[in-house]
Amino acid sequence: MSGSGPASESFVFRPVGFIKTAFREKFGIPRQSGLVEEALGRLELVAPYDRPEAFRHLERFSHVWLLWVAHKATGDPSSLMVRPPRLGGNRRVGVFASRSPFRPNAIGLSAVRLLAVEADAVPPALKLAGVDLLDGTPILDIKPYLAYSDAIPDAEGGFAPFAPAKALTVSFSAAAEAFLSEYPEGERLRTLVEHLLELDPRPAYREARGGAYAFRLEDVDVRWRVYGSGVEVTEFSRVAGDAT
Amino acid sequence: MSGSGPASESFVFRPVGFIKTAFREKFGIPRQSGLVEEALGRLELVAPYDRPEAFRHLERFSHVWLLWVAHKATGDPSSLMVRPPRLGGNRRVGVFASRSPFRPNAIGLSAVRLLAVEADAVPPALKLAGVDLLDGTPILDIKPYLAYSDAIPDAEGGFAPFAPAKALTVSFSAAAEAFLSEYPEGERLRTLVEHLLELDPRPAYREARGGAYAFRLEDVDVRWRVYGSGVEVTEFSRVAGDAT
Repeated sequence: MSGSGPASESFVFRPVGFIKTAFREKFGIPRQSGLVEEALGRLELVAPYDRPEAFRHLERFSHVWLLWVAHKATGDPSSLMVRPPRLGGNRRVGVFASRSPFRPNAIGLSAVRLLAVEADAVPPALKLAGVDLLDGTPILDIKPYLAYSDAIPDAEGGFAPFAPAKALTVSFSAAAEAFLSEYPEGERLRTLVEHLLELDPRPAYREARGGAYAFRLEDVDVRWRVYGSGVEVTEFSRVAGDAT
Repeated sequence: MSGSGPASESFVFRPVGFIKTAFREKFGIPRQSGLVEEALGRLELVAPYDRPEAFRHLERFSHVWLLWVAHKATGDPSSLMVRPPRLGGNRRVGVFASRSPFRPNAIGLSAVRLLAVEADAVPPALKLAGVDLLDGTPILDIKPYLAYSDAIPDAEGGFAPFAPAKALTVSFSAAAEAFLSEYPEGERLRTLVEHLLELDPRPAYREARGGAYAFRLEDVDVRWRVYGSGVEVTEFSRVAGDAT
């Protein structure tokens, strides 16, 4: 940290680690943490934090907070209003009334389930579930979730108080089924895709339309189309050369 | 934000505002947000965020998250273990298993009640309750609290799962009563002091002992002593020259 008077005060932070997830692009990522339990993450620590003692007793907690940098948020950081996707993308709210990553200090906040502390792995890592982060996101901090002060179940929310309704039913084409039957951990991929698509990842202004969409998960391109209240996964294809 | 490769990557953040609270020193501040509702705060925005549109519709939320800088945390930021006060100050846990402000990136996280958005004040300000921050703390971000993803009431916590028991009964000496009867908003000060002291702000390794203590709230020095399971506020005194 450094500072030379309130007006010019600034603070410098370095990542304590980076997270590996299935999400290779922003489209398709759940809009908050905890919505899709099968969205896993592996947080790998970097030096000098890659030491088992930094996590001693963390395994006693079921959930942790991640503070992360929205490093791919390319909007104008000086903009004071944003257009949340849940509002159809055409109503503006104040940036501090939203969880948009396009914000003055692009720090995100996610509550995720702690599956395991791999203190003796090289580097040490945390296995996490319910993750809403792009692959490679820099992590600034890890904190235990304290229900007695962090959980406010009766907190009232403005325009996005409820979890998105699971509006869409998801089916798979014969070609998609054939791919899953041969893919390693095909059932895991099926469940992840089902739970991502039933939340309807499209921006709200597209929700009235049908059409064809695609996103990449791990080393797989997922193609899908919307019809009425259903989604069909039409095709999976392995991406050549994805070495991640 | 800036970065030149993962190893040297760093991110620079500037405060969006600063908070005014009653807490003039760290001793006596509740150990988490939300524990003492009467601990008020006034968050004043700084340029270029001192514009009403930055808060448009925030008033629809009952609670907000504050991300803040522990600017007075003077410990060794490279230390990977800490001694939480709740554990008596003599057991060490990993820094990522604690909410200690002495951490690699000294960013704090507090869920506070939003009492009012003063969008037309100069500068614009938020009135907050349940605050656990030192007066003058720099604020990096304000986010709406979203119960559907942020509230995990059944999250399990390790060694500090429950709110601190209200162990101590609080009384006031005749001299303290006389001060309160003449102090502006004396009843507000009384309630704040009662609720701060019944949580027992002493570090755990002192809890078995009696003794005399003091801290400063606003422009008042509060002196108190512990006997058995009680606290007596022995004396209040105005601090000369506190112009805050």
